[in-house]
Amino acid sequence: MDKEARKKETLNKLLGIPRQWYSQMTRGDLPSITMPTRTKKNIEYDEDTEVWKYGDRERLREAGSEKSALHILKMAYVIWFIRHQIVENRSSTLRELYYISEGWKRAKFGAQNDSNLLIEDLEILTDVQREQFNLRPEEDGASIFGPLKIREETRRGPKEIHCGNDVGETGYQIPTNVEKLELVDHDAKMVIAIETGGMYARLIENGFDEKYDAILVHLKGQPARSTRRVLNRLAKEFELPVTVFTDGDPWSYRIYASVAYGSIKSAHISEILATPSARFIGVQPTDIRDYDLPSDKLTDQDISALRAELTDPRFATDYWREQIDLQLSLNLKSEQQAFAARGLDFVTDEYLPARLSEMGVLKR
Amino acid sequence: MDKEARKKETLNKLLGIPRQWYSQMTRGDLPSITMPTRTKKNIEYDEDTEVWKYGDRERLREAGSEKSALHILKMAYVIWFIRHQIVENRSSTLRELYYISEGWKRAKFGAQNDSNLLIEDLEILTDVQREQFNLRPEEDGASIFGPLKIREETRRGPKEIHCGNDVGETGYQIPTNVEKLELVDHDAKMVIAIETGGMYARLIENGFDEKYDAILVHLKGQPARSTRRVLNRLAKEFELPVTVFTDGDPWSYRIYASVAYGSIKSAHISEILATPSARFIGVQPTDIRDYDLPSDKLTDQDISALRAELTDPRFATDYWREQIDLQLSLNLKSEQQAFAARGLDFVTDEYLPARLSEMGVLKR
Repeated sequence: MDKEARKKETLNKLLGIPRQWYSQMTRGDLPSITMPTRTKKNIEYDEDTEVWKYGDRERLREAGSEKSALHILKMAYVIWFIRHQIVENRSSTLRELYYISEGWKRAKFGAQNDSNLLIEDLEILTDVQREQFNLRPEEDGASIFGPLKIREETRRGPKEIHCGNDVGETGYQIPTNVEKLELVDHDAKMVIAIETGGMYARLIENGFDEKYDAILVHLKGQPARSTRRVLNRLAKEFELPVTVFTDGDPWSYRIYASVAYGSIKSAHISEILATPSARFIGVQPTDIRDYDLPSDKLTDQDISALRAELTDPRFATDYWREQIDLQLSLNLKSEQQAFAARGLDFVTDEYLPARLSEMGVLKR
Repeated sequence: MDKEARKKETLNKLLGIPRQWYSQMTRGDLPSITMPTRTKKNIEYDEDTEVWKYGDRERLREAGSEKSALHILKMAYVIWFIRHQIVENRSSTLRELYYISEGWKRAKFGAQNDSNLLIEDLEILTDVQREQFNLRPEEDGASIFGPLKIREETRRGPKEIHCGNDVGETGYQIPTNVEKLELVDHDAKMVIAIETGGMYARLIENGFDEKYDAILVHLKGQPARSTRRVLNRLAKEFELPVTVFTDGDPWSYRIYASVAYGSIKSAHISEILATPSARFIGVQPTDIRDYDLPSDKLTDQDISALRAELTDPRFATDYWREQIDLQLSLNLKSEQQAFAARGLDFVTDEYLPARLSEMGVLKR
């Protein structure tokens, strides 16, 4: 879809909400909105798309109470603001939107979390992502390094950039709105998403991208929406296998899960954010044991997070049960950079090739 | 100095330390190291360079006690490791170094903070920065956007990149080792260093770089060494005025101070990290008052941080005393994105041009 058509469609869907209010009021009804309830209980696994989505539970908000009337008033103001922004080709951060509401008298937001949630509600009601509203978060997106050519649509015209040849050693930093990117071409056999900057730099320094035709993506901890979106697109558009390489602790397994299965907060857009084909490389608890990695004892928080994962449907596989049970009995966790204890090349010469072969990503 | 000469000099300075130990031992003396004490009390303002440096207080560590002997043993291992790394053109993260020490028996570090401190000690003893030891931190450096052309020396040859034309809308991300950069050319009249990603993106979207010939640098909160180094070099090599634009709270004033005057931790390299000519644009407490910005009440921590700044020699000017006194009496703080309450263009059309004229950076 071209830019103008997309813009028109976004505006049409957005203005559908006040149009509905208008017809409700002309009928003598209270204006209202109906939304899926956004809780863990209302998350279901969708067999077709292999991601977690909202279920059938719904909540009706009718302007009959002061609280709900105010909520609808705020939504009206936000729709008005977004409409202006789209028409004028402007954009703003979620934080700026919160500050802009200062001028909206009773529709002013009390905290940024409230305005963020309302934007997510609008995404659900319109089935359009906030990126199309020209709203962006503070956080940066991922960095990418490797045999991938992209075309970014910037205010100063389109820029074609090769993520290995045309960038410095930190790679190409993707914009907060990945819809502005065209994935032009690639020479890759796989994508590896990496939690820490240190390991990302290690793979680049050791030439792993060239030797194994790998596109390297730096997740920067818990990945931003734009990072998950770009992984989703690399997997879909190029049919590349995606693997996720993190520290060996429960918080890192959650990073993997949010890449592969999506999160509750963004369950309405799991289909475009999650990469169900993404697989976990490590650090696995079996690696901590087999390679005798430098490690730390689990904290009480680690232990309860691991136990919570044992009941999380996203981890309900034999693989994860075995790994998590082993970790609880080892009572240890290791970071990905702990491989350095076996030499700076161990991770790229031994560990990753072995795991990638085992997983069938690397054909022998 | 070319790459090979620099390498030779680094190795020579580094190996000077064990050479001294060797001659001490052949004389029948205990091996020792002498270092400036690295505390707030031993920080002095240097009139010539206009930065804060270590003073004359020194500490002698002699291998007569077990603790000091172990310290010297660890230093010997680290020197051995760095020497190998330099000879083999390898590099590693500070975290990897910490893990590598796992194999050093009694010289193993108990925590990464210990190995980091020892590296800083080596910087002081050798007068060489850790970047020349091929050691890098986890953190990313700044992003830069604007009329600046750089040449980065990468493992895959030199890359010449224009930070406005050859990059996406998030700009060029500088490497952790800024010494690999050559600042080739520019068309700028000023450099603006910006605390938050939201404001950095705002200035790019509004075309502030083009309209005012400004190089925009995203500080990403408390700036990394590489970020401070690049500001220092932009100011020195191109003689460009540098201004710092942050939130209006005591923690942000510290960001400004670390850019302009340096920090205690890195006082041994203030000359190459600090930019004494850097000036503070805002958000000033007077701006909170004059523009009636959306604001929050000061917390107890804010108040004590402001009071501490009143006794900090780096803030011992009439300007800062007035601003801080005003802030304490207003009892308010504001973020830079709070300007959005006056419209998305206010900050670029009104506020910044007015401040830059007032400061003499923008000639009317």
